[in-house]
Amino acid sequence: MEITDIKNYMQLVGQQARAASRLIAKAETAAKNQALATMAAAIKRNKQILLAANAQDLEHARTKGLEAALIDRLTLTAKGVDSMAEGLLQIAALADPIGEISGLNYRPSGIQVGKMRVPLGVIGIIYEARPNVTADAAGLCLKAGNAAILRGGSEAIHANKAIAACVKEGLNHAGLPESAVQVIETTDRAAVGELITMQDFVDVIVPRGGKGLIERISNEARVPVIKHLHGVCHVYIDKQANIDKALRIAENAKCQRYGTCNTMETLLIHKDIAAKILPELTEIYYLNGVELRGDPAARAIVATIKAASEEDWETEYLAPILSIRIVNDFEQALEHIARYGSQHTDAIVTEDYTQARRFLREVDASSVMINTSTRFADGFEYGLGAEIGISTDKIHARGPVGLEGLTSQKYVVLGDGQIRQ
Amino acid sequence: MEITDIKNYMQLVGQQARAASRLIAKAETAAKNQALATMAAAIKRNKQILLAANAQDLEHARTKGLEAALIDRLTLTAKGVDSMAEGLLQIAALADPIGEISGLNYRPSGIQVGKMRVPLGVIGIIYEARPNVTADAAGLCLKAGNAAILRGGSEAIHANKAIAACVKEGLNHAGLPESAVQVIETTDRAAVGELITMQDFVDVIVPRGGKGLIERISNEARVPVIKHLHGVCHVYIDKQANIDKALRIAENAKCQRYGTCNTMETLLIHKDIAAKILPELTEIYYLNGVELRGDPAARAIVATIKAASEEDWETEYLAPILSIRIVNDFEQALEHIARYGSQHTDAIVTEDYTQARRFLREVDASSVMINTSTRFADGFEYGLGAEIGISTDKIHARGPVGLEGLTSQKYVVLGDGQIRQ
Repeated sequence: MEITDIKNYMQLVGQQARAASRLIAKAETAAKNQALATMAAAIKRNKQILLAANAQDLEHARTKGLEAALIDRLTLTAKGVDSMAEGLLQIAALADPIGEISGLNYRPSGIQVGKMRVPLGVIGIIYEARPNVTADAAGLCLKAGNAAILRGGSEAIHANKAIAACVKEGLNHAGLPESAVQVIETTDRAAVGELITMQDFVDVIVPRGGKGLIERISNEARVPVIKHLHGVCHVYIDKQANIDKALRIAENAKCQRYGTCNTMETLLIHKDIAAKILPELTEIYYLNGVELRGDPAARAIVATIKAASEEDWETEYLAPILSIRIVNDFEQALEHIARYGSQHTDAIVTEDYTQARRFLREVDASSVMINTSTRFADGFEYGLGAEIGISTDKIHARGPVGLEGLTSQKYVVLGDGQIRQ
Repeated sequence: MEITDIKNYMQLVGQQARAASRLIAKAETAAKNQALATMAAAIKRNKQILLAANAQDLEHARTKGLEAALIDRLTLTAKGVDSMAEGLLQIAALADPIGEISGLNYRPSGIQVGKMRVPLGVIGIIYEARPNVTADAAGLCLKAGNAAILRGGSEAIHANKAIAACVKEGLNHAGLPESAVQVIETTDRAAVGELITMQDFVDVIVPRGGKGLIERISNEARVPVIKHLHGVCHVYIDKQANIDKALRIAENAKCQRYGTCNTMETLLIHKDIAAKILPELTEIYYLNGVELRGDPAARAIVATIKAASEEDWETEYLAPILSIRIVNDFEQALEHIARYGSQHTDAIVTEDYTQARRFLREVDASSVMINTSTRFADGFEYGLGAEIGISTDKIHARGPVGLEGLTSQKYVVLGDGQIRQ
C-alpha cells in the first residue's frame, strides 16, 4: 500500500485506536490471555516467514551501509523468535492489573472510597531497530487494557509487518478488535510528527531509542511522554565497604554487559580505601579489556590509568570504558552524583548503616541501591514480569515500567444514599 | 521592586527554587511541621495586615470594573484568614509522605526491591483570584518536600505578597530556605510563559482556574502539567433506583453548591422510572430556583421544562441550570456519558448489582460513584486531608490531588553483595 496523505492516514489510525481502546478496556481477562497465547503460537508457527522478512530488512540495511551495532540490534535469530513468543506467554501469565480495587475505606460521611486500576487508553510506542519490541509492546499494552500504535524503525519494517500479522491473528482469534494494535505502515518520518501531536487520539507516548530520538520527541510532543533517557550510573565504594563485595559489584556493574543503560559508567572511591582496592580493581578491569580514565588521585595510585576530562564524568560510554574518581568523603560522592548523574541508577557499597540510610534517601535517581550491582535495574529482575522501558521521569512512572506503568487509577465511591452536608 | 527583565528574573527564581528543592527534599518532618505551624501563627497574628492588603486589591478590582463573581472569589474575610491558618495546621497534622518505603520484597536473586516515596522537585502553581490558594499550595508543596513557585492572579497581588511574608517567616523560623516558596513579584504575563517552559528548573505545573487558562497553559507548556479541566458531571437514575435515594442524591448533586466542578450538570433518567420520579424532582428543583432544560421525552412528562439544545449536553453551567435526558436503557446512559462527559465525576443510582458493577468498571472518569452525590468528589471528603486541585488527566494523578499526587516513587534495592548472572 502506498500511503501519500500522512496526516489523513494517521488520523484514521488514531480514530481506530481510540474506538478499539474502549473495547479493550472492558475486555475480559480470559480473552486478553487467549489473544496473547494465539499470538505466541502464530509467531512460532511463522518462524520462517519472520526470519525471511528480517533477512530482507538486513539486506536493505547492508546495502544502505548501516553501522554494525544497528545491524546487530536489527538481527532476528530463530532463538530470538522463540523468546518473543515466550515473552508473550509470560505476559499472559501475569495477573490482570485492570479493575483491581485498592484501599477501599469507609469515611466519616459513610461513603466508601477506594481506587480502581484502569487503562491509560491509547499508547504510542516509537522505537528503533529491534523488531522484538513490536511483540513485547503489543503484549504489554494489550494486557494493560490499552490500544497501541507502534512505530518501529524504517529499517525493520518487513519484520515488523510480519510480527503484526501474528498479533492480528491473536486479536481476531480472541474476538478482540484488530485495531487494538496497529503497526504504522509507512516509513515516512512525518508519521511520528502526527503521532506525538494527536491529543484527541493518543494518551501517552513511550519513545525507546537513542538520546537524540528521545529529546526530539520530548520537545515536539503535545501528548505526555514517558521518557527513557540515558544512564550515567555510579557505584560509590565507601571507606566502610567490604572489600570482597566491592570488587564483585564493581566488576559486575561494569563488565556484565557494556551496552545497557544500567551499566556503571563512573566509579567513585573513598580516599581512605582507594589504595587498598584500586590496584586489584585495575587488574580485574584490564583482564576484561576495560579502558580506565581517572582523576589525578586515581592516577597517583595506578599510573596506567589514563587522564579523565570533565566530559568523561557526564558520558554514557555504552562501551568497555570506565571513569574513576577518588572522593574525599561521602558528601563529595553525593555531590558528584547529583552534578553528573542522569538520575537513572546509583549504588553504594558500604557496611556503615548511617551512610547507607542517607544514600538511600538523598540520592535522586530512579533506582538507588545498597551493596548490589546497578545491572539489577530491570523490570524482570524487579519482578514486574516485563518492561516497556526504564523511565527517568518523575511524573507518572519512574524506573522500570511494566504493566502498572501503563495504567492509571480512578476513584470509586460506594454509598447508600449519602449526600454532602 | 520594578522587574523589567522578566526572563532574567524568572531564571533566577528557577535557580533558587532548584537549589532549595534539594534541601527541602531531605528536610526533617519536624522542621517542615514547625514551619507550617509558624506560618499559621503568622497569618493569624497579621490578620489586619492581610485584610488591608486584600482591601487594596478589592479597590483596584472595583476601579477596573471586574465582574462580581471574580470580586467574590478575591474577597478575604476574617473567617477566611482563620481557615487559611487552620488549613496549614491540618497539613502539619498529616503523616509525612516522604521516605515511606512500600512493597519491599525479596527476589529470587536475593536482592530486596521496594519503592520509596520522594518529592517531585519544583512545582509551579498558576492560579487566579483566590488568595487562600497561596497558603494552601505553599503548605502542601512544603509538606511533600517540594519547592514551590507561586504565580497568583495580578488582581490578588497585594494579599499574595502579604501571605508570602508569613510563609517566609515560617520557613526562616524552622531553618528552612526562604526560597522553598517563592511568590512571583511581577504581574507581567510573560512570567507565566517563562515558568511553564523552564524545563531545567520546574518539574511540574499545576494550573488552577478557568478552562481558558488551563488550555492555554497545556498547549504552551514544555514542562509536565497536572490539569484540572471542567466538570460536566452526570447522575444516572436507573430503573432499579430506590426513589428516595434518587431524590436526595439528585437534589444534593445539583443544589448543594452551584459553582463547583463536582456539581451535576446533566441528569439522566431511565424511561421506565421517569414518569414516577420526574414530576417530584421538578418541584424540588423549582423550589431551589433551578432552571430545567430537557429532551422531548422529559418535556412530555413535565411541560414546564424548557427545551435543551445539543450544546446543553456539553455545558458546565456552574449555575442553577440543569439539563435532563430520558434514556431508553443502561447502554444509552453509558454512551451519553462517554460522549458528553468531561471524565470528572459520574454517579449511578441503582439497587441492581450487575448494573452497579458495570457502571463502576466501564465509566471512564476520575471518580465513579454508586448511590451517592457527585459533590463528594473532593480531597477532604476522600480523606486526603487537603487538595491542590482535581486532576482530569490520566497520567500521574487522577481525581483529587493531595500530598501523594505531589510526590513520585523511586526504586530502592538492598543487597548483600549480589551480582547479576
